Amino acid sequence: MRYALYYWPSIQGRGEFVRLALEDAGAAYDDAARTKAGMDRMMAMMKGEAEKRPPFAPPFLKAGKLVIAQAANILFYLGPRLKLAPRDEASRLWLHQLQLTVTDFVKEIHDTHHPISTGLYYEDQKPQAKQYAQSFLKERAPKYLGYFEKVIAKSGGPYVLGRKATYVDLSLFQLIEGLRYAFPNAMQRIERKLPGVVAVHDRVAKRPGIKAYLASTRRIAFNEGGIFRRYPELDD
Amino acid sequence: MRYALYYWPSIQGRGEFVRLALEDAGAAYDDAARTKAGMDRMMAMMKGEAEKRPPFAPPFLKAGKLVIAQAANILFYLGPRLKLAPRDEASRLWLHQLQLTVTDFVKEIHDTHHPISTGLYYEDQKPQAKQYAQSFLKERAPKYLGYFEKVIAKSGGPYVLGRKATYVDLSLFQLIEGLRYAFPNAMQRIERKLPGVVAVHDRVAKRPGIKAYLASTRRIAFNEGGIFRRYPELDD
Repeated sequence: MRYALYYWPSIQGRGEFVRLALEDAGAAYDDAARTKAGMDRMMAMMKGEAEKRPPFAPPFLKAGKLVIAQAANILFYLGPRLKLAPRDEASRLWLHQLQLTVTDFVKEIHDTHHPISTGLYYEDQKPQAKQYAQSFLKERAPKYLGYFEKVIAKSGGPYVLGRKATYVDLSLFQLIEGLRYAFPNAMQRIERKLPGVVAVHDRVAKRPGIKAYLASTRRIAFNEGGIFRRYPELDD
Repeated sequence: MRYALYYWPSIQGRGEFVRLALEDAGAAYDDAARTKAGMDRMMAMMKGEAEKRPPFAPPFLKAGKLVIAQAANILFYLGPRLKLAPRDEASRLWLHQLQLTVTDFVKEIHDTHHPISTGLYYEDQKPQAKQYAQSFLKERAPKYLGYFEKVIAKSGGPYVLGRKATYVDLSLFQLIEGLRYAFPNAMQRIERKLPGVVAVHDRVAKRPGIKAYLASTRRIAFNEGGIFRRYPELDD
């Protein structure tokens, strides 16, 4: 099966959580919206010009006749197919539950720079962003990351499910990478209590598929159009 | 199978989307955290005192040995079992994708009164809430609800999947009920373009299980501790 991933072409964004799984597994896929024609196709699919079941927003994955949207839903589908999740229902639901907690966290990370409206620029909501980021870095980020730390400890480690890496571990890698980019000072402080999560990050970085991907031009650099943005005034 | 639902006892909140499915189907379940002992059990499960896979937050469902968290994940699991979703993979993924869009919408609804921090009272973030609510009511609510309107039209109606009601339709009912409670003026305006969504709401309200539930004391009234809050200053 050759997959087509549709996502905004200039940012990592929510598409990156899917991309990491495809790259880790060495799956055959097209990053379809990185061409003008692909971008037009993506917009047409969202409008529902030909789709009976149009997605609300990218990322979405075309897998044969299926079009699947929502990053966590795509990973739920891909997990066992890419050998990044077991096949039994209990483990699949548990991993998905963890991934949905990642989704919630990602939304709060996004809101550190856009607390009032996605229709406004960051520059138009800077004081509110500073307020949001303060409580995010003090309470929310330690709470979410501390939860994953607990999950890893309870699994016996080194990964969230135990001995085998899953797509959730790839997402934890991305969270740490992105948070270090956006909040280098705060993360120095926060990471002290996260030996298990940081170890997952380091292990994932060394996986052959991920290592090759990170060194390639397919990996878009972090930038101030994405979810993780470096605005020094929001950091500790 | 007798289920146990764990959720904060004084609000509808995110637990309500699960409760509506259980009630519609006439499932055997305990609303487990409505007693002091149940509430203590809920807190212990989150702490992971005995759980190997502790949930991050309520709602969660105990189904035999499984503990499943995240409302959309619970509904994914319950859907076919309660005959509120088909069994084929394509339809299940599609319904789940829609439910995850409901989840995203619910978070934005919550943020109309808590745009800066869940650790602060509404009274401590009122001007920011007014700003958030304005763009929410002008742009985001019409966008989300307009999307579901399109989905219903494309299915042929009357429900999101066509002729048979699903758990997503129950969630649309709850969204309309809650938004009417929170923003009665804005909803008069917004609903004009949503004949299909409003028709789903009206049909769901008449389903025997839902009708009996709404008339019972099991249905907690909307209140200013929940997701949908009536603060007239935030309305149109």
